Amino acid sequence: MKAVQVVGYDEKLRMTDVPEPEVTGPHDVLVRIGGAGVCRTDLHIIEGQWAEKSGVTLPYTIGHENAGWVQAVGSAVTNVAEGDKVIVHPLITCGLCPACRRGDDVHCENSQFPGIDTAGGYAQVLKTSARSVVKLDDSLEPADVAALADAGLTAYHAAAKASRRLHPGDKCVVIGAGGLGHIGIQVLKAMTAAELIVVDRNADAVKLAESIGADHGVVADGGHVAAVQELTGGHGAEVVVDFVGEGGATRDGVAMLRRAGDYHVVGYGENINIPTIDVISTEINFIGNLVGSYTDLCELMVLAAQDKVKLHTTKYSLDNFQQALDDLDGGRIRGRAILVP
Amino acid sequence: MKAVQVVGYDEKLRMTDVPEPEVTGPHDVLVRIGGAGVCRTDLHIIEGQWAEKSGVTLPYTIGHENAGWVQAVGSAVTNVAEGDKVIVHPLITCGLCPACRRGDDVHCENSQFPGIDTAGGYAQVLKTSARSVVKLDDSLEPADVAALADAGLTAYHAAAKASRRLHPGDKCVVIGAGGLGHIGIQVLKAMTAAELIVVDRNADAVKLAESIGADHGVVADGGHVAAVQELTGGHGAEVVVDFVGEGGATRDGVAMLRRAGDYHVVGYGENINIPTIDVISTEINFIGNLVGSYTDLCELMVLAAQDKVKLHTTKYSLDNFQQALDDLDGGRIRGRAILVP
Amino acid sequence: MKAVQVVGYDEKLRMTDVPEPEVTGPHDVLVRIGGAGVCRTDLHIIEGQWAEKSGVTLPYTIGHENAGWVQAVGSAVTNVAEGDKVIVHPLITCGLCPACRRGDDVHCENSQFPGIDTAGGYAQVLKTSARSVVKLDDSLEPADVAALADAGLTAYHAAAKASRRLHPGDKCVVIGAGGLGHIGIQVLKAMTAAELIVVDRNADAVKLAESIGADHGVVADGGHVAAVQELTGGHGAEVVVDFVGEGGATRDGVAMLRRAGDYHVVGYGENINIPTIDVISTEINFIGNLVGSYTDLCELMVLAAQDKVKLHTTKYSLDNFQQALDDLDGGRIRGRAILVP
Amino acid sequence: MKAVQVVGYDEKLRMTDVPEPEVTGPHDVLVRIGGAGVCRTDLHIIEGQWAEKSGVTLPYTIGHENAGWVQAVGSAVTNVAEGDKVIVHPLITCGLCPACRRGDDVHCENSQFPGIDTAGGYAQVLKTSARSVVKLDDSLEPADVAALADAGLTAYHAAAKASRRLHPGDKCVVIGAGGLGHIGIQVLKAMTAAELIVVDRNADAVKLAESIGADHGVVADGGHVAAVQELTGGHGAEVVVDFVGEGGATRDGVAMLRRAGDYHVVGYGENINIPTIDVISTEINFIGNLVGSYTDLCELMVLAAQDKVKLHTTKYSLDNFQQALDDLDGGRIRGRAILVP
Repeated sequence: MKAVQVVGYDEKLRMTDVPEPEVTGPHDVLVRIGGAGVCRTDLHIIEGQWAEKSGVTLPYTIGHENAGWVQAVGSAVTNVAEGDKVIVHPLITCGLCPACRRGDDVHCENSQFPGIDTAGGYAQVLKTSARSVVKLDDSLEPADVAALADAGLTAYHAAAKASRRLHPGDKCVVIGAGGLGHIGIQVLKAMTAAELIVVDRNADAVKLAESIGADHGVVADGGHVAAVQELTGGHGAEVVVDFVGEGGATRDGVAMLRRAGDYHVVGYGENINIPTIDVISTEINFIGNLVGSYTDLCELMVLAAQDKVKLHTTKYSLDNFQQALDDLDGGRIRGRAILVP
Repeated sequence: MKAVQVVGYDEKLRMTDVPEPEVTGPHDVLVRIGGAGVCRTDLHIIEGQWAEKSGVTLPYTIGHENAGWVQAVGSAVTNVAEGDKVIVHPLITCGLCPACRRGDDVHCENSQFPGIDTAGGYAQVLKTSARSVVKLDDSLEPADVAALADAGLTAYHAAAKASRRLHPGDKCVVIGAGGLGHIGIQVLKAMTAAELIVVDRNADAVKLAESIGADHGVVADGGHVAAVQELTGGHGAEVVVDFVGEGGATRDGVAMLRRAGDYHVVGYGENINIPTIDVISTEINFIGNLVGSYTDLCELMVLAAQDKVKLHTTKYSLDNFQQALDDLDGGRIRGRAILVP
Repeated sequence: MKAVQVVGYDEKLRMTDVPEPEVTGPHDVLVRIGGAGVCRTDLHIIEGQWAEKSGVTLPYTIGHENAGWVQAVGSAVTNVAEGDKVIVHPLITCGLCPACRRGDDVHCENSQFPGIDTAGGYAQVLKTSARSVVKLDDSLEPADVAALADAGLTAYHAAAKASRRLHPGDKCVVIGAGGLGHIGIQVLKAMTAAELIVVDRNADAVKLAESIGADHGVVADGGHVAAVQELTGGHGAEVVVDFVGEGGATRDGVAMLRRAGDYHVVGYGENINIPTIDVISTEINFIGNLVGSYTDLCELMVLAAQDKVKLHTTKYSLDNFQQALDDLDGGRIRGRAILVP
Repeated sequence: MKAVQVVGYDEKLRMTDVPEPEVTGPHDVLVRIGGAGVCRTDLHIIEGQWAEKSGVTLPYTIGHENAGWVQAVGSAVTNVAEGDKVIVHPLITCGLCPACRRGDDVHCENSQFPGIDTAGGYAQVLKTSARSVVKLDDSLEPADVAALADAGLTAYHAAAKASRRLHPGDKCVVIGAGGLGHIGIQVLKAMTAAELIVVDRNADAVKLAESIGADHGVVADGGHVAAVQELTGGHGAEVVVDFVGEGGATRDGVAMLRRAGDYHVVGYGENINIPTIDVISTEINFIGNLVGSYTDLCELMVLAAQDKVKLHTTKYSLDNFQQALDDLDGGRIRGRAILVP
């Protein structure tokens, strides 16, 4: 089958012909790819930033945001059958370690990450596990939702966690209305009655945010901390969800936070650097957020099927993968690029 | 001032002239009534059903759903000032007992209940406490929200508590789309992404429910348990909120509940009568719901100001109180009757 | 191998020779039995009370509280290896349904229950699943902990759930200091600072309860509701955990409950029969409790290894099974009877 | 009456004669001091470190850890009466702002802090509020518990919050076994079954910790991170409670934390300085902790009355205040110094 592989760091990806994966274990599931999201992480992989961390051996097939149709299943698979339309959770988890047994499978002690440390979905067929596939509603198409498998799932996870403490009258600041923030806003809107204040450097992104549920949009032009303070009656917001995490976002974000508030860290890049006396005297919390669990992905697919979460996509044929990567790198993608075999 | 009083059980209420209340304690607040809700409980009081329970001495002024403008405040009142537009929490609580100190003021050990056990709001002026008044948003008028002070607050409390465990994909059955259910549906819609299934005997009430947020309406015509089972894939709903509590509602409601589900008891009348083996083998819970706290009322007023919770009202002048009671008793009120002095 | 089987209802169990189970599926685990608890449910099975509910075909091997050593494992088993000392969770769960994925495996949609609906542990070898075995600490022996696998696990589950809302100064009533209550008291003592009040009809059981952590013991002799009211300053207890559920326990237990309290239903037999108005006016909750999850069993084994939960056992050889059943039926067992092959 | 006052920064405190406070407001409570804790913060006040932050006008009476007997009460005080033995919550809160109404009175928008920004308890009589006094059990004496009013309450608050997520088998690291840590360890022991690992630079403090409930003691001698990793099977601890917050404690503490763990910040001094990528890739949380609420203080007093929390004290007469301060400054106090008028 066709597969797009990393053949060397700082080299271009290469499309090649590789053997189709086969069912070998009882929980194996083969998915015929209907769409694979092209992610900024893919650019970082090509640059070698993940080489050491993943320990993967080249060449290998990338692509960690995948959806498609079940092509074959192992002997112990009972939750999906050949032909089912599915989205693929980015991790393959063991199901037996303490974290998996608590439903906290993201912290599985024995997980694999297709597209990062084993063969991914820039290909015609992906090998994953019964524990990783979520059946799609009839109304959803693999190529339309593939990019929700990782980026969208991370945004969902953070927004759903944040929403648990948000009551009517509370304010929630979302920093960053790009790929993740865009999903996070829709999730927060669907799950909470709190007032949403969206902050972004890009005025167009702020406008988009307002069109999908933000109650207030603030352009981050230097006066944004003051603007949020004014919108929150000088108290700051009960919750800040930071999808940026660099360029001073954390310093500004903390200045927007109310006493006893929660600061959700999602985006990354810079350091959190804050005096402990400020943490205790205002009694604020910093909450880390990784990708969501399998259950989170099921819930996100419900919101997608209910049309409460939408994602703009631009589709490319798998053969045209280089164009998709170039467009992403050049800032020419609105929403997400999807490879369709 | 004018006041409408209970002068004897099973006698008609009488409008009379009584001295205006005065500020005597440091936390006293006098409210010039802008609207007082006429509630089915008022009919029960007149029939003497509350005589023993409340221990009130006749004659006294009834009316427990009140809103208006602050007329005078005691020396220690800092949260409102003369002229402020307010809604009045139905209880006067002490602020010092353990329940009050935890924010759970509904379980105050020393509370009073104006309109039930002391003078209420069918009058020109009501005496209450600083701990009972919530300032209204400019966009809200006392006569429009008065009925949210007790019935609406109870519905909010139950719906908000229920929503804490509802995730996308979960189903929530609301039994009863009358006064309370109508508010509960709007609250659930604002605070959760769960699918709402509303069950009522009255086809018009079901239609109304669908117009304000119900995803599915079911007329309780004998096939309603089966209809809910079908809508929930045979599993039942994660949550049932029962605003009826009589006429077999609890038996039917339990039959609509999923394993490990929560049954919220709000309406009352009949007994819950269920084998303990059914409770443990399905691991279901019954959750009691009383009126909401002061904080709940603040949150409900936010939803009202955001136009997320609306209530249909029919206004009567205070002089015309008998007509309002007769119309309520005769089933001629759509929404709630409000007395305006 | 030897196995003790139900050959007909209301007939005596028969020891017979059956083929040893074999590994056939990837997650199969064979456990050489070190101890099998003899439970009152076993008496009920023999009497035919479970015949219809379980749908099991006779003859079959009973015994649902099992511990021992791993004898063989399927190809996909990674969490235990041959020779490991294990306790066996009573359910075999699928690991793929929504409940299993949330860690709530007790509500698995596809579970089996060895000893109830398939071959159990009154035998030399038991077939179970990788998802059901918990490795034991070196300090624990299978025959000593086997009875914690079901009865103990149920008590742990209820006590741990109850303890989440118990603060210092709160009171917790435990009704029933028998097999389950005895474990529940030790768990509550280990996990909460609340004051424990134990109520039992048997004065000796009350004394035992006091020796293992009860702060107050009350003999249920007719004055027990009043006694608990006095011990709780007339307020009642924040939590009641009812391990009895029959003979008027629920009526008395509700009378011991404080406003806004939680009534944990564990034991069963009679009906909960309570006016909805009492549920809402006091805002109490009834919380169902089934057996605990796999994670619960892991936690209980930690408490056992720390010597915080102890169980008195009387051991019988497997050949001597009839004596064990007769002693249980005749009320001659202190603690639990264990069959050792 | 006698009072010890700050008369100038970097000057010695001076005992002087001041008018006794009087009841002027309805919620006022006068407390005849039975004991006033001498705290390191008092040394910082004298050095002027709090001058700007508190905005207090000199001279004023310091002392923020107070207990004694009620001498007089205002007209609206119902929870205590003359002669009652009480401990005094360090804040005077308004009872009417949103935070107070939720029971979260520490975040009161209008609070005062006797001993910091108004007259404190190094005196014969202290003026406080009905909302600040907690009645003491007969078994407790003011001078014995006074130091629990602030330092102990902070430790209680953090330990109680931390304990909510600790299950049997979880590990909890306590950094710092000094004044606060010493209380925190006893609270964690009373409220959780988790394994406690206590880390301190001082070998004697570690020994003391082991005698009051630590399951493992680790001397912070450079190998402490490795020691904790070994004690936690290489995973790190589910919870770290850091009572130090300086000298590299946060860096070391984070290295002791498990994936998805909670880092409780209590002590302060240095910055938390951590890459956001580390926060998200391990999904850890930083939880701020301020002093506890009124309800927390009630609960702590229950643990003290149950002898579950003990504090070593050294008493000095109020006249001898300078000696107490000198002994504290010179490191000659074991436990806490208490001034007794």
